[in-house]
Amino acid sequence: MAGKRYLMAPGPTPVPPEVLAAGAAPVIHHRGPDFRELMLRTLARLQQVCRTENEVLLFTASGSGAFESAIVNLLSPGERVLVVTAGAFGERWCALAAAYGADVHELRYSWGETPQPEDLRARLEETGGVEVVVVVHSETSTGVVADVEALARVGRDAGALVVVDAVSSLGAVPLETDAWGLDVVVAGSQKALMTPPGLSLTTISDAAWARSSRSTMPRYYFDWERMRRALESGSTPFTPAVTVVAALDAALGLLLEEGVDAAFARHASLGRACREGAKAMGLELFSPDEERSAVVTAILTPDGVDARELVLELRDRFGITVAGAHGELGSRMFRIGHIGYYDVLDITTALTAVETLLVERGAPIERGVASARALEAYRGAERV
Amino acid sequence: MAGKRYLMAPGPTPVPPEVLAAGAAPVIHHRGPDFRELMLRTLARLQQVCRTENEVLLFTASGSGAFESAIVNLLSPGERVLVVTAGAFGERWCALAAAYGADVHELRYSWGETPQPEDLRARLEETGGVEVVVVVHSETSTGVVADVEALARVGRDAGALVVVDAVSSLGAVPLETDAWGLDVVVAGSQKALMTPPGLSLTTISDAAWARSSRSTMPRYYFDWERMRRALESGSTPFTPAVTVVAALDAALGLLLEEGVDAAFARHASLGRACREGAKAMGLELFSPDEERSAVVTAILTPDGVDARELVLELRDRFGITVAGAHGELGSRMFRIGHIGYYDVLDITTALTAVETLLVERGAPIERGVASARALEAYRGAERV
Repeated sequence: MAGKRYLMAPGPTPVPPEVLAAGAAPVIHHRGPDFRELMLRTLARLQQVCRTENEVLLFTASGSGAFESAIVNLLSPGERVLVVTAGAFGERWCALAAAYGADVHELRYSWGETPQPEDLRARLEETGGVEVVVVVHSETSTGVVADVEALARVGRDAGALVVVDAVSSLGAVPLETDAWGLDVVVAGSQKALMTPPGLSLTTISDAAWARSSRSTMPRYYFDWERMRRALESGSTPFTPAVTVVAALDAALGLLLEEGVDAAFARHASLGRACREGAKAMGLELFSPDEERSAVVTAILTPDGVDARELVLELRDRFGITVAGAHGELGSRMFRIGHIGYYDVLDITTALTAVETLLVERGAPIERGVASARALEAYRGAERV
Repeated sequence: MAGKRYLMAPGPTPVPPEVLAAGAAPVIHHRGPDFRELMLRTLARLQQVCRTENEVLLFTASGSGAFESAIVNLLSPGERVLVVTAGAFGERWCALAAAYGADVHELRYSWGETPQPEDLRARLEETGGVEVVVVVHSETSTGVVADVEALARVGRDAGALVVVDAVSSLGAVPLETDAWGLDVVVAGSQKALMTPPGLSLTTISDAAWARSSRSTMPRYYFDWERMRRALESGSTPFTPAVTVVAALDAALGLLLEEGVDAAFARHASLGRACREGAKAMGLELFSPDEERSAVVTAILTPDGVDARELVLELRDRFGITVAGAHGELGSRMFRIGHIGYYDVLDITTALTAVETLLVERGAPIERGVASARALEAYRGAERV
């Protein structure tokens, strides 16, 4: 083996060489003109990708840090938040809000189910007095991508602010912050934005700013107002991850050069190719077989094939990192991420390796069928 | 001008090329064997540098994130904390603890003063019931390095836990976590550890763990126990800044190869060289003229020379980034950082550029005197 590595998890994701190089430039000081220019350009590019004129804040933290910023800036202890949860990340939002003393209610689905706007409407009416609704756009643990536009409309109709967890969807799946009236969108650098992990962002509407000025949850590092004041002059209150900012700026440049709509189309095609290739091997999908499921494809193994062993063998024999599944799904499911710096030949690489291992285990699969079907399904991409 | 840049601020600091290269390697997944090995090695190296057998936690955050973790894990609202403050970072600790509802008391000095153990003893007796004492090791805003060993002894004698802010001192100035009985030490990646910003660490004694299990301040992202559980198996609860971890690991390898004691001696010599060079130009020091002041040298400009203009001109004409001063000191003071990837020729570079600008402004300085004196003062370094 050449020792090559293929990162095919739904985050962190592969980073283009020019982005890695941008992050390896000598460190610059965060209170000077070089950084100011870099930071202001990065924030403007993030606005373009988020399709918003709202301010964007950038925290040196994992995506969950941005989650925390949304909770502690929008709510006071005892205030009511409704989390739409259908997987690991919905559950994290609940735990986080509860840790800060919010009155947490859930619209809870089984893992793998797709949240429905009518369920949310009913739950909001039944609960009453909900100040903030949290919706996970792409539930990375299951591959489900929710219809955020419709869910947000229901939330707004009920008078709640709408917070969207777009950590694994931003840049991969259509998201219209302003057109859909999303008050807060949070995301991380390490998914479809093709950047190493270390930064997380949040967009904030006027209504969200107004709530944050009244909310009394304790906060310091993740205080929005402190960050806004500093960013206005292109700096940050605390030393930021300057090399990751440089990388993010470069990655956003590439993404905007491709075009955000083109990136959405590419990801939709990647998802379709992955699903069709998996089905061609006779595998059952756990994530929905629908166009929106463009971030990560969750696949069930055939009876008798342990998914954990499959994941380990993909890594040890082919250098491929795919993701396993959480909890009791762990023995039956694996997940192929396909966001960011990713093209259809990455899909065929992943499927070819999976096919090889399954054939070795006696699965009745015609060799090459997964790749062939994936390429066929990847319509509209220039390179195919 | 060749457009070369010289980063001579007290953080972020210059990063060795091999550390930048380590951070530019392809991203690896944070829940796999490659990362596990990297993370466990990095934590073990941090223990060596901190000279502790206590667990070290590593957060994806600026140093102030580690500050926040110490406050929210050690205290319950209303509990008493005493902060020894003599500059910007002491003030930040006070503001942070107050934001979380601690009962904050201060032993407050003017900026530039050096905290005295007898003052702390008196203040602790007078205050009574102090649960936690916070001491800033190196006050980056003034260049003062406190006698943490003596201050910690006083804190412990009063029955308080001792938290040390070693953000700009770790790796530059002697710090003995276990031998001095320091309960919590916090630091960042971007100072003497020669790594880009983005990671902060905290060491935690048994007594601090015991307090954290009882403390009721709300927390999630910075919760110690959640981080400990994940790190035990070499991962993290939230996607960490994996490329910065790779860089930190490489930098710690270089630091341990040099030897921590050798690094302390080098920094002491760098501080001495900088002070002697500045004095040779007839400049007045703001930071103490003592061996411990090895992190950053704060220098007052001659009458009639605006320090802000000097800092801008150093940047525009020579590409040199030094730090200005906060608040009303801004017009009179600048700060040369000399930590991390730094040798005596960096000192002479900084002094030569300062000398040039001062001579142009009519200062009666014999050309070359600063460098000559700095090299002479830099005793014991192999390269001179």
